[in-house]
Order: sequence, then C-alpha cells, then structure tokens
Amino acid sequence: MARHITSFSNATVKRLRSLRDKKARREEGLFLAEGLRIIAEARISGRLPEIIAFSVAGAEHPLASEIITATEAAGGEAIETSAEILSKMSGKDNPQMVIAAYRQPLTALEGIDRSRAPLWIVAQALRDPGNLGTILRTGDAVAAGGLILIDDCADPFSVEAVRASMGALFTQAIATARWDAFIAWLRGGPGQLVGTSLKATTDYLDADYQAPCFLLIGNEQQGLPADYEAACDLLIKIPMAGRADSLNAAVAAAVMAFQVRASWRG
Amino acid sequence: MARHITSFSNATVKRLRSLRDKKARREEGLFLAEGLRIIAEARISGRLPEIIAFSVAGAEHPLASEIITATEAAGGEAIETSAEILSKMSGKDNPQMVIAAYRQPLTALEGIDRSRAPLWIVAQALRDPGNLGTILRTGDAVAAGGLILIDDCADPFSVEAVRASMGALFTQAIATARWDAFIAWLRGGPGQLVGTSLKATTDYLDADYQAPCFLLIGNEQQGLPADYEAACDLLIKIPMAGRADSLNAAVAAAVMAFQVRASWRG
Repeated sequence: MARHITSFSNATVKRLRSLRDKKARREEGLFLAEGLRIIAEARISGRLPEIIAFSVAGAEHPLASEIITATEAAGGEAIETSAEILSKMSGKDNPQMVIAAYRQPLTALEGIDRSRAPLWIVAQALRDPGNLGTILRTGDAVAAGGLILIDDCADPFSVEAVRASMGALFTQAIATARWDAFIAWLRGGPGQLVGTSLKATTDYLDADYQAPCFLLIGNEQQGLPADYEAACDLLIKIPMAGRADSLNAAVAAAVMAFQVRASWRG
Repeated sequence: MARHITSFSNATVKRLRSLRDKKARREEGLFLAEGLRIIAEARISGRLPEIIAFSVAGAEHPLASEIITATEAAGGEAIETSAEILSKMSGKDNPQMVIAAYRQPLTALEGIDRSRAPLWIVAQALRDPGNLGTILRTGDAVAAGGLILIDDCADPFSVEAVRASMGALFTQAIATARWDAFIAWLRGGPGQLVGTSLKATTDYLDADYQAPCFLLIGNEQQGLPADYEAACDLLIKIPMAGRADSLNAAVAAAVMAFQVRASWRG
C-alpha cells in the first residue's frame, strides 16, 4: 500500500530529488525517469523501478496503477504525493505526475555480446547528455545493440539523457570503457570500427559496412583524436554542402546508422 | 572606440541581457549570438552585429578585433566589459568572451525564393529550440535553402536555437507562416511536399523525390495533423526496427534530408 507523503523533508522525497545530481546517482546506483510514457516503456522492457512517486491524478491511469502495484509487489517503494512535491523533485514547473527511480544497469564492456546485433554505436567524449539520449533513441530505431561510451562522456543516466532517450535507455545495452580497453575488447572478436573524419576520402554512401559494425562518433567540438582515427578499419566522410564542416553529433550518428542499415538492405 | 563598461546597471548591458527573453527579442527585433565561432560565421555570411560586447581577453583574438572594428565602422555599438558582466548577460558560469546582438532577418514567406535551392525544410509546431537550431545546422550541411516554420514553433532566434545552429542561422533563410498561407504559397509554384507518417507505405529509401522538395517535419509529440498529411504530395515512412515508433525531430529531418540528397546523386 503506497504511503502518502506531504512533507518536502521526507527522506524518500529527498532521495529522489538528490538523483538529479551525478554524484548521488553514482553513489546510489540509481537514476530518475519522469513521466508515464518512459516508465511504461521500462515495464514493457521488463524493468520495474525501486521507487515510484506519483500524484493522485497520476495513479488514475490504468498503466500507472499497474506499475505502482507491480513495483510494490516486487519489494519496491511507492509514494503518493502532491504536485508541489513532484515539482520539487523534477525541478520543473509542470512536473510529470509519475516519477520513478531505477537501478542503473551494469556497464562493463565484458557484458556486451556483440553477436546480439549487427550495429553498435560508440560515443567518444560526448559532453551533451541530450545527444547521448538522442543517440540511444536512434539506436533503438535502427536495432543497434547498444551504446559504448569512451573517455569522458556525459552521464547517460542524467535526467536529460533519460528524457531524450524516450525509453531507449531500457532497450539499449550501455557500456563505458577507456579507449585502450575498448580497442583490446574490440579486437578480441569480429568487428568493423568505422569513424567519420574530415580527412577521409570515402563517401559514407559508397562504403562497405560489415557486421558487427561499430560506429565511432567523436566529441562535439574536437571530433575524433588522430590516433583514434588511425585505429579505425574504415574512415568515411559525410559530404558537407554548406558552410559548416560538421553536424550535430546525434545527427551524424543517425545519418551514419541509417545509411549502414540502408546499405545492408541490398 | 569601444566604451568600457563596469556596471551591471548599464543600459546596454541590460538590453543585451533582456534578449534572453522572447518578448524583448520580438520588441527589439534583435537576437543574441554568443562566442567567436558563431560571430565569425555571421561575418563570413556578410552580417555584422548591432551591438558587440567582449572582455579584454575576447578582443585579443584577431578575428574578434576585426569584427569589433567593423561593427563600430558600420555604426554599431561595441562595449568592453568584465567576465562577470558577460556571465550575467549569457546566464552561464563560463560565458563566452564575445557576445553580440544581431537584427532579426525578415521572415515573410514571400521573401523565400524557392528556385534558390532544391531542398527546403518545413517545421510544424516544433517546440524545442535546440531542435530548430540543429535542423538549421543540418540544412546548411545539405545545402537546403532554409527553414519554414509553420504554426506555433519555438523561437528560432532564442539563444538555445542560435547556439545549436552553429552559425547556420546566418546561412539559411527563415520564414514563418500559418499552414493555410504556406499551402497557398507552395501551390503557387513548383514544389513537392513530403511528409513522414506512421501510416505511409512508401519506404523513405524507395521514394521519388523531386526538386524543389519541401520536407515537412511534424511536432515532437503529435507528429503531423491528419489534414496536413493529406495535403502532402508524398508520404513516406522511416522504418523503425526497435521498440519506439518515432525519432527525435531533428534526427528525422536529417535522415530524410540526407536521403533526398543521396537519391539525387544518381
């Protein structure tokens, strides 16, 4: 039976609110998802939250009600609270009526089974959490296996990344690794590492992509370091017809990923 | 000669700061651009700001120095100020060292010359200014002529949109129109209106795109209204291989735009 909480100083309220902070997320091993849509997506993917908070109106939706009941049945915590307190937890004026905290999945490279999917996305030092979430969403759309984060990336479990992923966080595998460890792991099995580079001569439309294909997307400002490019099996360029010499990182990942799939359609 | 300003209450400081607000932008007819990169991009595109504010360090860069001098020569206002005041104007802890205010271009549909480019992007009720900016950036990359905003879109001159555009705001034409006015204008000349729809049966890889092609991108949550879809010459679908049934709007625009270009490569 869900507890009814009216105090901003309640421990669970404080705990959920703290998950907006990266340090707290790391210490707790949890992350926040806001809104019924993403929480339902998690449920479809077989994931229940450890904590779920909702308003009276939020619990009225049959899907929310089912998830609240299932969360409690699985030993999780359910709290009914006010719109004001939900607003405080979400940091938004118009908060979602349901907010939940999920256990972060393991993110060791060794947990990735590359045979599970023909396409994987590798993000190198991406700093924008919205870009990470958008890339996860695109990954879901192209049936990628998951996202591998290299070097110092934004936190894929930040509220902004979770929101941009639109639930794909629950369908895509996520791993984090240093570059050297990633390369050692990659070369321990089949895998074509594909990078985009201004210096490349192969047009992305003409390239021969081979599964499992690992698309390497570089930092928003700097692109890929030269030695990372040198480690690629294939360097391609996306022709730029205008003034700019680069695309938004999430856009580049999507244009590449959809072209890889298109090339395999035969 | 640039004035040196040390007061937060200076009128120009207040005016620049006010441009973070949509109402002030509309009243003044100005918008803010932050950082040398985008201001240099404007200069390359032949645009100088009406006001430019910079720190001592910011003015040391030869490009910044040139633009400051040119701005003053053209009758604009240049102010040298502190990092603290720049920080207040930009609303960021780590502000850019150069901030400038530009006159908003005219955005009447009648100002669009469709023969200028084979591809145009039409955004319907897009609410995320970052998406608008990213679409402008993609538009530049695919040599689109510009972006036409239909219905109640986010402000393309907001700081977030300007930042995401990475300078493409200065290379792409921008128009705003109601749907009825847009359709009347579109049908007054050649133009293929292409929409994406879950109900479409034509795969985006198999479609016959014809210039001038107008790619219609629907609202982030709702997609296109049914009667807007009905007005399209071509409805295509981007196959979704995963759980989700949609892409981020800026990603969808990019996947479509790059495929249109790819199909024309022959």
